[in-house]
Amino acid sequence: MYYFLNDYSEGALPQVMEALARTNTCATPGYGNDPYCREAVEKLQQRFACPDADVHFLMGGTQANLTFLSAALRPWEAVIAADTAHIATHETGAIEACGHKVLTVPNHGGKLLPEQIRQVWAAHGGGKDEHMVLPRLVYVSNATELGTVYTRAELQAISRVCRELELYLYVDGARLAPALDAAGSRLRPEDLPNLCDAFYLGGTKNGLLFGEALVICRDGLKPGFRHAIKQRGGMLAKGRLLGLQFSTLLDDDLWLAAAAHANGLAARLAAGLEAAGLELLAPQETNQVFVIVPDALAVRLEQDFRFERWQTLDGGRTAIRLVTSWATAPEAVDALLEAVRP
Amino acid sequence: MYYFLNDYSEGALPQVMEALARTNTCATPGYGNDPYCREAVEKLQQRFACPDADVHFLMGGTQANLTFLSAALRPWEAVIAADTAHIATHETGAIEACGHKVLTVPNHGGKLLPEQIRQVWAAHGGGKDEHMVLPRLVYVSNATELGTVYTRAELQAISRVCRELELYLYVDGARLAPALDAAGSRLRPEDLPNLCDAFYLGGTKNGLLFGEALVICRDGLKPGFRHAIKQRGGMLAKGRLLGLQFSTLLDDDLWLAAAAHANGLAARLAAGLEAAGLELLAPQETNQVFVIVPDALAVRLEQDFRFERWQTLDGGRTAIRLVTSWATAPEAVDALLEAVRP
Amino acid sequence: MYYFLNDYSEGALPQVMEALARTNTCATPGYGNDPYCREAVEKLQQRFACPDADVHFLMGGTQANLTFLSAALRPWEAVIAADTAHIATHETGAIEACGHKVLTVPNHGGKLLPEQIRQVWAAHGGGKDEHMVLPRLVYVSNATELGTVYTRAELQAISRVCRELELYLYVDGARLAPALDAAGSRLRPEDLPNLCDAFYLGGTKNGLLFGEALVICRDGLKPGFRHAIKQRGGMLAKGRLLGLQFSTLLDDDLWLAAAAHANGLAARLAAGLEAAGLELLAPQETNQVFVIVPDALAVRLEQDFRFERWQTLDGGRTAIRLVTSWATAPEAVDALLEAVRP
Amino acid sequence: MYYFLNDYSEGALPQVMEALARTNTCATPGYGNDPYCREAVEKLQQRFACPDADVHFLMGGTQANLTFLSAALRPWEAVIAADTAHIATHETGAIEACGHKVLTVPNHGGKLLPEQIRQVWAAHGGGKDEHMVLPRLVYVSNATELGTVYTRAELQAISRVCRELELYLYVDGARLAPALDAAGSRLRPEDLPNLCDAFYLGGTKNGLLFGEALVICRDGLKPGFRHAIKQRGGMLAKGRLLGLQFSTLLDDDLWLAAAAHANGLAARLAAGLEAAGLELLAPQETNQVFVIVPDALAVRLEQDFRFERWQTLDGGRTAIRLVTSWATAPEAVDALLEAVRP
Repeated sequence: MYYFLNDYSEGALPQVMEALARTNTCATPGYGNDPYCREAVEKLQQRFACPDADVHFLMGGTQANLTFLSAALRPWEAVIAADTAHIATHETGAIEACGHKVLTVPNHGGKLLPEQIRQVWAAHGGGKDEHMVLPRLVYVSNATELGTVYTRAELQAISRVCRELELYLYVDGARLAPALDAAGSRLRPEDLPNLCDAFYLGGTKNGLLFGEALVICRDGLKPGFRHAIKQRGGMLAKGRLLGLQFSTLLDDDLWLAAAAHANGLAARLAAGLEAAGLELLAPQETNQVFVIVPDALAVRLEQDFRFERWQTLDGGRTAIRLVTSWATAPEAVDALLEAVRP
Repeated sequence: MYYFLNDYSEGALPQVMEALARTNTCATPGYGNDPYCREAVEKLQQRFACPDADVHFLMGGTQANLTFLSAALRPWEAVIAADTAHIATHETGAIEACGHKVLTVPNHGGKLLPEQIRQVWAAHGGGKDEHMVLPRLVYVSNATELGTVYTRAELQAISRVCRELELYLYVDGARLAPALDAAGSRLRPEDLPNLCDAFYLGGTKNGLLFGEALVICRDGLKPGFRHAIKQRGGMLAKGRLLGLQFSTLLDDDLWLAAAAHANGLAARLAAGLEAAGLELLAPQETNQVFVIVPDALAVRLEQDFRFERWQTLDGGRTAIRLVTSWATAPEAVDALLEAVRP
Repeated sequence: MYYFLNDYSEGALPQVMEALARTNTCATPGYGNDPYCREAVEKLQQRFACPDADVHFLMGGTQANLTFLSAALRPWEAVIAADTAHIATHETGAIEACGHKVLTVPNHGGKLLPEQIRQVWAAHGGGKDEHMVLPRLVYVSNATELGTVYTRAELQAISRVCRELELYLYVDGARLAPALDAAGSRLRPEDLPNLCDAFYLGGTKNGLLFGEALVICRDGLKPGFRHAIKQRGGMLAKGRLLGLQFSTLLDDDLWLAAAAHANGLAARLAAGLEAAGLELLAPQETNQVFVIVPDALAVRLEQDFRFERWQTLDGGRTAIRLVTSWATAPEAVDALLEAVRP
Repeated sequence: MYYFLNDYSEGALPQVMEALARTNTCATPGYGNDPYCREAVEKLQQRFACPDADVHFLMGGTQANLTFLSAALRPWEAVIAADTAHIATHETGAIEACGHKVLTVPNHGGKLLPEQIRQVWAAHGGGKDEHMVLPRLVYVSNATELGTVYTRAELQAISRVCRELELYLYVDGARLAPALDAAGSRLRPEDLPNLCDAFYLGGTKNGLLFGEALVICRDGLKPGFRHAIKQRGGMLAKGRLLGLQFSTLLDDDLWLAAAAHANGLAARLAAGLEAAGLELLAPQETNQVFVIVPDALAVRLEQDFRFERWQTLDGGRTAIRLVTSWATAPEAVDALLEAVRP
């Protein structure tokens, strides 16, 4: 069975496993107050060119999102997001459970447009109508839930609107590495601290056992954040595991190499599917390929491949999602392309 | 430097590390829907003699506590706990952050007495005074924060009061393995499902990289719990890591062996300290030893040992906490006893 | 200046003011434990034919909504509502502040359709997808925010879907009296306890100084509700004021007479506006009239009338909202119709 | 039956009822945007000598407390209060329901001492221990729940500690008028804005139908507060009722006259009880008298008087609470003193 189900089906990159094994018996203080975490923080500050940023390690994306958003917002403040946003659809109302409304707008290929931010702002009385929530933070994911990416210019345009309207900009980077690797995005690591107030670099979907590195760039959002992590249940006793993994991932840009591997196979997959006469639901830009197949083909593929059925379409067609990762073997791509050959 | 700082200073038991390495490249579905989790659930159900219980894996104790308590209680319902309870003191108000008051009573050697439950109940109008919260759940930790344990008889007495007053009983088992191993406790794994409505078996402090296994025994508390986990940020993408670790820990009662190792060294430590003329702050029952030392000795010990200063006492004395674990070497105990020799 | 701004611009019906004056010096226990409240409860139980329902008095609509919804739902459960719903638009995220997501669907003349409930249910995995919230309660307002009403048949159809899918049905009755009075609705007071699990009868917009009477019909939702009221800050010390006002309002169906007065004037207003060649934005069914006027007319009207500009339309037109109430004088309607005469 | 049950057993002062009747048919905008509210705000700013303070009207004390505290605090921040504090005992966990822990210390005659604030601060790591909540606000009630008052000097001492430790100071003034009238308190209205960051002047217990006037003195706590009120369900549609009542109460210092009446009768009551050989449980300083009576006398008194049994004492004795108010007739005091005559 070949796995295209998601990018977190296996364990971790061999370098990560090796590091865990190597340090297993070393004793360190808990809760992230250890040398591995300090090292990882420094490497992240350096790689993203933000020596003054605060870096915190969390265990998963939902945890990172809910901890940061609930720490940043006052009770009546709300988030603006695309209707496909992970926080809006697949986090079981985690943001609302912390008390905050998520205001959604129709996505454009998974993305939010700057003018949509202005529209939401205006529709809420420019923050002055006390009968409505106060929009205060813009959430984007990069790559998006549809595998598309914000180009540098697009993120700059969003950032400008946010600063003008005094909105925080937060980038959910569960798949930030594939986004930065994406052809044509022109976004560089060092752009993020300039454009947004906080972002996280996802490890779970890029070769770690688990872990997301949250980078808080805006000074006003820094105080008290370790209290927030502990209160929300996100402070790992053996925090060293997070530091060690990220430290390993940052070495020699292993994180970007892993993303390039996944993106490359996805590109080959997309090209092969199109060559086989199939249509893509969305352009392939990162490590997710959404392809439209006849229902019968979907059924046949399920015999040898694991993937997600994304959407039922008319005309006896189904859109399926194929995800590649650091762990995907080229042979799996070959096998799939072989299987769809007309 | 010898570590008596806590029982989560190192990585994981060798068997656990081996299992993680062995399965690293296997692909599985995410979020705990994998064969390792299923296996671990079955082993837990069997070992604790509760085939109908629901078992969920979480990443840490605070996360387990806040997720369960907030799922079990209606908004105006409150928790009764000892004033030393972890939820009352060292979880940054996590339970309150979920909306619930923690009603504390003075601890007796870290423990709660049945009559204190009755007193709180009566002081709140027997649940009928709408100007006060409604006490609805009793929280005990076993072993307690002071390393003491509830005997089987003590837990039975608490359980009886809870059933009489229609209160849930929840056991925080961050250190349940040492508690079950404790000499004289007479509490057996199979007692827990009979006595309480839910409990968790801690892995973090008993040789796993991380992980707590929550066992929900009462039917009414089962529905929707996976929603609760996801909403609170506790659903690990690579949930298999939790299943695999617990599955390994349950094999051949490795969990009890690890606890016995820790308890045994703690007993030796306690005996040696007393033989050296030092007084214990609390009786040693599990893997934590609280000993009173002259300030000067505390300072001297800090040169070679890591431990926590627990409490400043009068007469130039300090209570320090020494914690043993599955990872503690007998040599460390020898070294410490040597260092305190008069 | 004539007021068509809303239906809460003045104080209270003369009968209500008289009752308050008459009983001002009587001493009673607080918090609703007084004879006036008991009387009002009985009158409501009788008038709505629900002798076993629990009745609670709250001070405003947002308070009623947030207190009931947060008491009824578990943390991961969500509300289904029209996108125009008051809880979705004009309560500053009060429901989210209590932890619950409001799932909105496009309104049909301010109303929700039964098939939309099914769609939301299906889109959330029929309650089985733990990555999404669990839809658990359907919120409708009657009359709606656009002044339209659910007919008896429409509410029956919604009720049937709710029962089938095990969803609670809650009716926000801020303007329930005008809805029941509306020509053609065929909905009777005694239908409500049969069709929904809880509803409230609004007093604020129907001639009381303040006050909403919440009726909880479903047994499982009754326990603990006074705790909920107190906890959310809604338990009035001089609760008698609520009981006395509702008791007065229920006498001789004063509540329906007040609504009939408002509806009657609204009908006359609507007819007159149409006779003057103006177009209504929505059909007039209760005491709100939405009419489209040239911008210049809107400006001119503002010299003598207070009303809300509802929406800017193209072609130099504006939709304005004219609200009548128990306090509206027929002369005000005459004056307005005179002012729009071509 | 004479009422000494509490100070909210009757309606409102005649001047208030007259004002409500006189303005009943005037039409105004809703939600506090009316001339009466503006007038009341100005009178409060002037009387308390704080022209730059923000003033908001709420409907009850619990609502004022929960709305202000939840707006002022970040999620991990906590409140310090006496163990008798209303928020700690009789508001059904309203503050916890908004996510915040209330840290209590043993009261001294209902009061908090400055050194207790320092102790809590130190015990929480001076705000630096992320495993504990961060104490951030000190709550005092004046008069206290035991009827005692903070003198000017006492409140100054508390204020100094708060400023030193960067804690907010909030005064719950449900009975602020009796406190300011109390002999020997030396606290003046104009002191409050200098000493604390926010306080409220209670109307409910001082002759209004309902209403508390919250005064926010610290600039940083002002923004967004109307959002907070609306979100928590506290924004009264006919907000004018609050403005009008407070405006009336401020005229000619009616609020202080009403308090003086209540305090005077309480003093006479206390003197008479002591003259009759009875012991007071706490010194009478404001309008609450706590007196110890033989059980038999308590039973006998209940035939003609309504009061609260406060505490069962040994030796067949009971402490009862007798509350006077603006509405208490001197004859009621005479009758009670007659009834206890030996």
